[in-house]
Amino acid sequence: MPRKIKSGKPKSVVIVGAGNVATHLGDALQKAGNKILQVYSRTEQSAKKMAVKLKSPFTTDLKKLEQNADIYILAVKDDAIAEILKNITLQNGIWLHTSGSVSMDVFKGRSSYGVFYPLQTFTKNKKVNFKNVPVCIEANNKRTLTALQNLASQISENLHFVNSEQRKQLHLAAVFACNFSNYMYTIAEEILNRSNLSLDILKPLILETAGKIKSNSPSQIQTGPAKRKDKMVINDHLKLLSGNPLYYKIYEILTSGIMEK
Amino acid sequence: MPRKIKSGKPKSVVIVGAGNVATHLGDALQKAGNKILQVYSRTEQSAKKMAVKLKSPFTTDLKKLEQNADIYILAVKDDAIAEILKNITLQNGIWLHTSGSVSMDVFKGRSSYGVFYPLQTFTKNKKVNFKNVPVCIEANNKRTLTALQNLASQISENLHFVNSEQRKQLHLAAVFACNFSNYMYTIAEEILNRSNLSLDILKPLILETAGKIKSNSPSQIQTGPAKRKDKMVINDHLKLLSGNPLYYKIYEILTSGIMEK
Repeated sequence: MPRKIKSGKPKSVVIVGAGNVATHLGDALQKAGNKILQVYSRTEQSAKKMAVKLKSPFTTDLKKLEQNADIYILAVKDDAIAEILKNITLQNGIWLHTSGSVSMDVFKGRSSYGVFYPLQTFTKNKKVNFKNVPVCIEANNKRTLTALQNLASQISENLHFVNSEQRKQLHLAAVFACNFSNYMYTIAEEILNRSNLSLDILKPLILETAGKIKSNSPSQIQTGPAKRKDKMVINDHLKLLSGNPLYYKIYEILTSGIMEK
Repeated sequence: MPRKIKSGKPKSVVIVGAGNVATHLGDALQKAGNKILQVYSRTEQSAKKMAVKLKSPFTTDLKKLEQNADIYILAVKDDAIAEILKNITLQNGIWLHTSGSVSMDVFKGRSSYGVFYPLQTFTKNKKVNFKNVPVCIEANNKRTLTALQNLASQISENLHFVNSEQRKQLHLAAVFACNFSNYMYTIAEEILNRSNLSLDILKPLILETAGKIKSNSPSQIQTGPAKRKDKMVINDHLKLLSGNPLYYKIYEILTSGIMEK
């Protein structure tokens, strides 16, 4: 069901990319009342899949991008952005990318451009409530920033003005907080499965640990053998990991990091 | 308000230790209707603090432990357990420790003993609903195991029978899933603060990442530059970390671990 547009008129949008971010963002923008004019993806299969979902036309040819969209959003792999732009001569409209790490300057030469970086992890089969997703915006001039702010506030109540330098640091921080902590869960699951135990037994602990940071600085609530400088346990753990040089090294360096604090 | 005892009669309990686990466990056992007969801590200050909380007597002298408790629980640092036991001649009653990594055999010689390992992270000022805390139990004989099961089921609905070998692996897995992921949040916060940003902006992402494992295997939902093998972003991040050799090394090894998967 379309939600009401809070600010600004409905926009016509071309989305370049058909991955998780492109799909979720396209869906949210459409539900907010905007028109997804066209979807582009390199392969027909993925372009079609997303186009069907959004009931929009698609193309696999950058030369056939719609000429008169209000907004063009590049939601592709970070290192594909510059590459794709080389093959687009089109200049009018507002140009945005969704990357945490690519500078806004990648659009230099065009008159209106910026960044629309949704700070969330998107999975194909998991619904995300965009309303709570922090969206970091940045634009090359005031008029574009206002347009971008209007667009973003249609779908999220959690907007932040973040410049390119800050955004790089933010993306780096997100890799630690999100990608690397998920990798920690992965290692835990592997260790448990080897002992005929399930990750289920650890899930309350994982959720509690993450939930704690809602009202605490993580540096203030660190627990565990490294924090206690409990060398007996640390040595036992390293022994248990002796058959896995990678996990051994990870345990060692994270433990020394916590102990140094 | 005391809850009803579901199984078995109320027990009299002596708690050795006055840290987070001791305090939360003592509180939960008392609320379930058991009598906390005595609290021991090495220092008068911490013994008193916990004793006041539980309205129980305390001692700082192991020779003055109550002789006739049903259950003695050692909730102290892992490497203090054996040390403390050297100074206790008392044999009767059921002897338990709460450690994830110390073998049950530390009590060898006594007639009834076991392990009561609550798999949760406890913080002094944060309430924990013990009902959902997974408790791993193990005992040296069937009768003791039944007693232990009765005690544990008074306060938790999430019991697991886990032997000493499995418990060690479980504790190791918990260090990765809990302690190390909290350290990842700590690094993220430090990076953000350096750029005048707050961890608040990352909190929805952290909660979503942890919440995802409720219904997914973490190995199946890994995202980020390492997973995408996005070398441009990885190199940018390493450059941003060049002033911090520790974080540089952590980023490098976790990235290579994810890429190897």
